[in-house]
Order: sequence, then structure tokens, then C-alpha cells
Amino acid sequence: MLIALLTDFGLSDPFVGLMKAVILTRRPDATIVDLAHGIAPQDVRQAAFALMHSLDYFAEKTLFVCVVDPGVGSDRRILWARGTRHQFIAPDNGLLSWVEEREKIHELRSVTNRKLFRDPVSPVFHGRDIVAPVAAALAGGAQPDTLGPRVPGMVRFPFPVPRKSRGTVKGEVLVFDRFGNAITNLRPGDLPRGARFKHKGKDLGRLRTHYAEARPGRALALTGSSGYIELSVRDGSFASQAEASVGDPVVVEPA
Amino acid sequence: MLIALLTDFGLSDPFVGLMKAVILTRRPDATIVDLAHGIAPQDVRQAAFALMHSLDYFAEKTLFVCVVDPGVGSDRRILWARGTRHQFIAPDNGLLSWVEEREKIHELRSVTNRKLFRDPVSPVFHGRDIVAPVAAALAGGAQPDTLGPRVPGMVRFPFPVPRKSRGTVKGEVLVFDRFGNAITNLRPGDLPRGARFKHKGKDLGRLRTHYAEARPGRALALTGSSGYIELSVRDGSFASQAEASVGDPVVVEPA
Amino acid sequence: MLIALLTDFGLSDPFVGLMKAVILTRRPDATIVDLAHGIAPQDVRQAAFALMHSLDYFAEKTLFVCVVDPGVGSDRRILWARGTRHQFIAPDNGLLSWVEEREKIHELRSVTNRKLFRDPVSPVFHGRDIVAPVAAALAGGAQPDTLGPRVPGMVRFPFPVPRKSRGTVKGEVLVFDRFGNAITNLRPGDLPRGARFKHKGKDLGRLRTHYAEARPGRALALTGSSGYIELSVRDGSFASQAEASVGDPVVVEPA
Repeated sequence: MLIALLTDFGLSDPFVGLMKAVILTRRPDATIVDLAHGIAPQDVRQAAFALMHSLDYFAEKTLFVCVVDPGVGSDRRILWARGTRHQFIAPDNGLLSWVEEREKIHELRSVTNRKLFRDPVSPVFHGRDIVAPVAAALAGGAQPDTLGPRVPGMVRFPFPVPRKSRGTVKGEVLVFDRFGNAITNLRPGDLPRGARFKHKGKDLGRLRTHYAEARPGRALALTGSSGYIELSVRDGSFASQAEASVGDPVVVEPA
Repeated sequence: MLIALLTDFGLSDPFVGLMKAVILTRRPDATIVDLAHGIAPQDVRQAAFALMHSLDYFAEKTLFVCVVDPGVGSDRRILWARGTRHQFIAPDNGLLSWVEEREKIHELRSVTNRKLFRDPVSPVFHGRDIVAPVAAALAGGAQPDTLGPRVPGMVRFPFPVPRKSRGTVKGEVLVFDRFGNAITNLRPGDLPRGARFKHKGKDLGRLRTHYAEARPGRALALTGSSGYIELSVRDGSFASQAEASVGDPVVVEPA
Repeated sequence: MLIALLTDFGLSDPFVGLMKAVILTRRPDATIVDLAHGIAPQDVRQAAFALMHSLDYFAEKTLFVCVVDPGVGSDRRILWARGTRHQFIAPDNGLLSWVEEREKIHELRSVTNRKLFRDPVSPVFHGRDIVAPVAAALAGGAQPDTLGPRVPGMVRFPFPVPRKSRGTVKGEVLVFDRFGNAITNLRPGDLPRGARFKHKGKDLGRLRTHYAEARPGRALALTGSSGYIELSVRDGSFASQAEASVGDPVVVEPA
């Protein structure tokens, strides 16, 4: 069973290494993939997006272990979720909100069985003391009903759906990547043919298919690898060139 | 056998990749865990702390391969150490100083057997040319007495013990993590009940158990996942908000 | 078969994780080594250098999967190359230029067989949708002639050879590493005995063998772990102290 790790721990501290140590000490044969550890600290929304658009690339039954957890140590629950194709462990803070844009969640459990945890549990690092040993237990064949009771729902924040009005579509910047591309909530199917993109009043032209269609240093809109439309600068950073921020409106007007 | 890597190499250059290449080329079945590679360049003390508080989470006999090595190429030795539960390879520069806060070191050897090294040895990258092939040899069953002669001692710097005087406890900031938390040399057992924390004259209140006990943006003291007390800001960075530095005194006064 | 990944994706986004997901979903037994992911965005030259000086440390037949790809989605080709000791997949943008400083390339193919790709292929992430599944296919025993047709040549940029004139050797800064060392295109064999190094008019003295030969804070020249001469500052950063840039001339004058 593949275990994918998604955290905001970065790689300068031993946090990720300790989670792996706990998993591999219990299941030396586990295969762990680092999905990403550079989620901005405590940015649950960015993690939710990264998780959503990564699902399709992982083998069936992959266990996604997600720790972006500003509420660690409080009474927020830790959830285990079974989706149509994958399974998940994550704090109940909205991180799993957008999984259902890709696959249905069929079963939700609150992870409460302390026999599976490390002892003692640090109130500030449930990733190491609860999530990692539970992941190891699942990798070792533990049945989901040993984790804790079923629960009817979880914290969700809605996916920001683009608004349409008289042919104009209004989206927004969801998140940035390392290259400074601004990923929006817009997909090609949301747009009228030939539409033009505007960000902060600046016309970015029509949807392109790849970076080399623009001249170096010029901004463009194209469909990113996540399936969502990105605002980019060829051989540059849209984030810095356009002084763009998360939440910026992106307006698409008919040709 | 698990091999844990701890370095200050970062991940932008191929240094860590080359150490893994050397290990996996010789032992394709080795399981390597990245404990951390973001130790501040040449900060032996930060590495010593990361190593110390990570030990308990790794399987018995794990080999910790530690390369934070400002003296590379000089006549500083490379050590192999056998502790009660784990084993270690590291330059003899104090990196193993605090291991004995957690487990006794029973045997120390100077790694001198050039037959185990790569040839030639770069004077500036012993990690790749000495440490990695020796780690591979140990993973392949090499006996410790083939590494080199026993040595009686190693470079150590003492763990900074908090000072107590008339009920007041004086500690200090040891290191920072990615979230800007300031990790101190204080443990809960060092403190009088109900004590209040002061940093740079500012009162941080009593010891809390988790971040959500403070309001967003407010500083607090809690027991970190390392077992040592950390100064934090809820949903923020203590390092930047309090302009804190390594070595800052942290004063704990009785209630 | 060892698979080595070299990209400019960084580790904050899921790009590397998705490439691994695609490989491991198809070949759960693959052994993947992260050579480096911190190549500066779109810096093909830095990647070419990292690849070149890393080759000797990897097992025979290692597959180097290299994705630094500013032309993604355009009509630049993706190449598979068979060298004397290793094999390679990379965009045809010069990334493989310097491999032949270390081993001969015997066979070049344009990777065109869409049956091996993911479907659909994102025009902005060939790493995930073309390179990763082709790497998995090769790891699974696919024959090179199934990848696509042989091609006679590839994009190359020449290695910047130092110029010599009347005993003076003129080299340049090729790239920087995390520690701020400036790696040059000079090798010890290029230099007259006892020669002195100059950067921006400042005399850096003779070639040393290790950092501890200089006093803390002082600049020096030594042979780096890549085999090329580096300009360094003991316990400091040459890049910032000397305000050095890629391309800076480095002049070596006879004693």
C-alpha cells in the first residue's frame, strides 16, 4: 500500500522525518511518497487544493496522510475517510473538503482508539504520535472499525464556484505555485469560446495551451496541470510581476 | 537496517542525492529516511538537538548518518558510535554531544579504514566519499572493528542546563523551527507549578498545553513535541514577532 | 533499476510527488532517488552541470529522469539517451549537453509513442504525463525501440572551456551551491603550479585543499566535490561576501 504524505512541515526540521521514522519502524516495508511538504504554514485551503488535484495520479487504495493542523491539541477530531478510490487521514478542519470534487467519500470515522497511538501523545504533534502510527496500522492490515466510531459529517468549506452573469465569468486566484503561477478556480469548460482574461484590469488575452505561445516576460492564461486555469508569465513569475494575491478576482469576458 | 540522514546540505544541490546514490549503488535494498537536511549551514548545535530529540522514534539499531561538518578535510576525525539503542556516524565536532541525554554511548571508533572509502576522497565532501560508503558497508554487515580503532572520547559541548536561583529558573532559546517557534532548554519538570514565562521583559503567561489556548496572534509557552518548552505565537511566528534570537534568556518566575 | 530525479520543481508544490506517484503506481518496486529538485527555475545550464558531475556516483544503468523544461508544450522533443554507463530522459533543450564530458552517448531517440503516455497529456506538465510513465515503462523492461525513432542529434551548448594566454588562465563562475560557494569551470589540471586566483580584482591566494586552511570569514579557492574549483569563504558565503554572479571571470595568474 502506497502512503502519500502531505504536510506544511517543510523539510528543514525533523517533523516529516519523524513521521516516516514512526511509520517505517512499525512497517519497514511501507512505500512512502512525499506528495508535498511545502504547503504554506497552516494553509488548509492550499492543502485541500493540492490533495484534490493529485488524487487521480495515485494507485487505488493509496492512503493519503495529511497534516496541516493549526488546531492540533484542541478538540478538533482526526478523521479517517474511505473514498471510492483512495483513503485518507486528516484533521477535521476542512482539509478533505474538495476530495469529493473527484471521488465520493463513503465512510468517515473519528480516530479515537488510543491503543493505536504512541504513548504519550504530544499535544502539539499529532502527526507523529497519532497519525503516523495509525497509518502504519492501516498499512499493516488494521480494519477501519478499529480506528474509532463512524461519524456523520466533517468540516467542509465549499469549493469557490465561478459566478456567471450575462456571458462574463468571475473566478478568483486560489493558490500560487513555486514558479509564481496563479492557479484559479476556473476550468476551460467554464468559459465562453474565445473569451479574454482580465486580472486587475489588465487584459491577458485568450486562453493559450503552453508557455511558449507568449513572448518572454509576457503574461498569459493557460490550463495548468491541475486542470484549472493559471495566470503565468513566460520565463517569469506572475505572482511578482502582477502583484497578485490569493482571492484576486479573475474576470473572463466573451470575445 | 534503517539509515537516517541528518545534514545541513539542503535539497537544492545534489549533495544529499549523491550520498543516497553511493549508499543505494552499494546496497540497493537499504531503507533511507531523511531526518532533516535543513539544519542551518554548519550549525552543529542545531543538528545535535535535532538528533537528540529524534532518537526515540527510530527502530533499534537505526544508523544515524550525520553530516554537518565545517571542519571537513581538516584533521578532525570521523566517528562511529554505538549507543544502547542506535548507532551513529558523524564528524567529531560535537554533533553527538547530546545523544547521551537519551542513551549511553558504549563504543567509539575513529573511521580510518580507507578500503571502505571511495577513491579518491574529496577533501570537501567526506559525506559522499567516506560516510556514505561506510554506512553502506555497515548496512551490508561490516563489523565495527573493521572501521578503525577504538577511541576513548570525542568532542562534546555540554547541554545548557537551566540555572535555578530562589525559585526563578533561567533558560535560553536553543533553536527555532520552521514555524518560528523558539525551542528552549527548559522542560516541564524544571519549573515551579504555576510559573510565568518572560522573554525580553514580556510576560508570556503560564505554560499552556496547545496552541488553541491562546488567541490568534498572541504569544504563549507550551511543551513542544521535542519535550522542551517552546515560545510560540498562535497562527504566527514567535521568532519574528518577538525578534527572538538563539541564546535569548527565558526567565521563569514562580507564581 | 535505480531512477534518479533531477528537476527545478522544488518541494513546496506536488510536482515531484506526482511524478513519483505515476512511477510507483505503475512500478511499485521502483527505487527512486532525488538527485536534486532545487535547480533554479528553468536554469537548464545549472541542471546540466549537476547531472554531469553526479554521474559517476550512480550504479550502472541508472535512469536519470531530468525535467527542467521551459519549452514544455512547444514542439521541443523529449529525448531518451543511452550512454556508456547510464541512460537518460530529458527535454531536448541542452540539459544533456555535458553528459559527454563523462561518458559517450551511443543512442538517441525521440520519445513519441503516445501509448506509453498518460492520457490526456497536459501541455504544461510533460514530467508527469510523458516522462514519468515512460520511466516506469523502462523500469518495467520496455525496449528502447518502443519509445520512438532514433534521432541523429540534440540541442547542445558547449562546456565553457577556460582560455589560456601567456600563462594566465581565464575561467568563469558556472553556478552557486547552497553554501554560497561559486563553482567555476576550472579544474586543478588547468592551472600552472602555484598560481593565484583573482575574482573582481581581489587576490584569493593559491589553491587550498580544504576550508580550514583559511581563517574564518576569509575567501579561498579549493577543488570542490564536483572536481571543479570553487571560490568559498570559510564559515561564510562567497556569493554574498564577494557579490559574485554566474559568468564572473575568474583569473588565474602564474606565481
